[in-house]
Amino acid sequence: MPPEARRPAAGAAVLRPDVTDAIRDAVLQELAEVGYGRLSIERVARRAGVGKAAVYRRWPSKLPIVLDVVSGLAAQSLPTPDTGSLYGDVRALLDVTAKVLQHPMAAQILPDLLAEAARSPELGQTLQSALREAQHGIVTAMVGRAADRGELAARPDPDVAMDLLAGPLYWRLMLDRTRLPAAYLDRLANAVVAALAAAE
Amino acid sequence: MPPEARRPAAGAAVLRPDVTDAIRDAVLQELAEVGYGRLSIERVARRAGVGKAAVYRRWPSKLPIVLDVVSGLAAQSLPTPDTGSLYGDVRALLDVTAKVLQHPMAAQILPDLLAEAARSPELGQTLQSALREAQHGIVTAMVGRAADRGELAARPDPDVAMDLLAGPLYWRLMLDRTRLPAAYLDRLANAVVAALAAAE
Repeated sequence: MPPEARRPAAGAAVLRPDVTDAIRDAVLQELAEVGYGRLSIERVARRAGVGKAAVYRRWPSKLPIVLDVVSGLAAQSLPTPDTGSLYGDVRALLDVTAKVLQHPMAAQILPDLLAEAARSPELGQTLQSALREAQHGIVTAMVGRAADRGELAARPDPDVAMDLLAGPLYWRLMLDRTRLPAAYLDRLANAVVAALAAAE
Repeated sequence: MPPEARRPAAGAAVLRPDVTDAIRDAVLQELAEVGYGRLSIERVARRAGVGKAAVYRRWPSKLPIVLDVVSGLAAQSLPTPDTGSLYGDVRALLDVTAKVLQHPMAAQILPDLLAEAARSPELGQTLQSALREAQHGIVTAMVGRAADRGELAARPDPDVAMDLLAGPLYWRLMLDRTRLPAAYLDRLANAVVAALAAAE
């Protein structure tokens, strides 16, 4: 084997994956603690226990790191519920969505990023495609099965279906972080099932 | 008239209402431009064309000014639609809500404040009562009239009703600020009417 095959090509740095992971974790923790606006490469490096150069070798600036970390999170999509009935699936999806949105990290990071997205079209675009892609697969599988079972006469418009499943919970939890009774989720699930049947 | 009646009591500063209005406007503009996190009394005073003392004579710090300005805005509540049918009322309310949420100032300020509310319970509490009080009156009047007309067999749970009317639009507009076709609003209105009938 010629010697150069054992060495990385000139300019291609060897990036230790454990350092990359530590930086990613630090970005998430900083996003939750101080928010996008006050996050800095210096703070991220300090929290990750690395030098600023280690960060800059991987990402050129703050926006690309955040885009990268957020896309990675959204790609770990929720499991699609498959309970055998549309009501059961909707109720299960509302339950897991509520848990995700109430997780202290998501509860802080998501509203921050959505607020920042109004100022940064690039961040807005990444958030939109990451979140909607994750949502789209779950929702179309769920309503597709319901249509196959004859529970829905027609497939609902996917945009309306996604917004009905995520929107009410998000709005509720943004305004009131303290309570989310099971009776509320039961009623909302009933209402969303009726709405899906009318949203073609 | 004795001379002291023409003078304010000792300690009660005379606050010119035009200066108060200029400060309130400056707060809104700063919230839209730099967000809650970066807003400062100094920036507000500069934008309003007054000294910092003029601000401090009215409010002791940043949080109370913002609470005051936001409560004032929310109190200018939307008119309750009264078209004669539940579908007509829902469609009209979605239309006006979409316009408000897409207004450049609301589109920037509301997500910022909701993000900040996760860090400031006092701000969260004020936002919650201001927004939900405004919403509650409109929604209960609307579904009350629909129940009286026999369009709804029972009055839907007000929490679920409010979240169905505001949540899907808010979620959609946070993620996608560019498009909101009339066909989407028509479908969403149909879906929400069906949901309200199932949300008792």
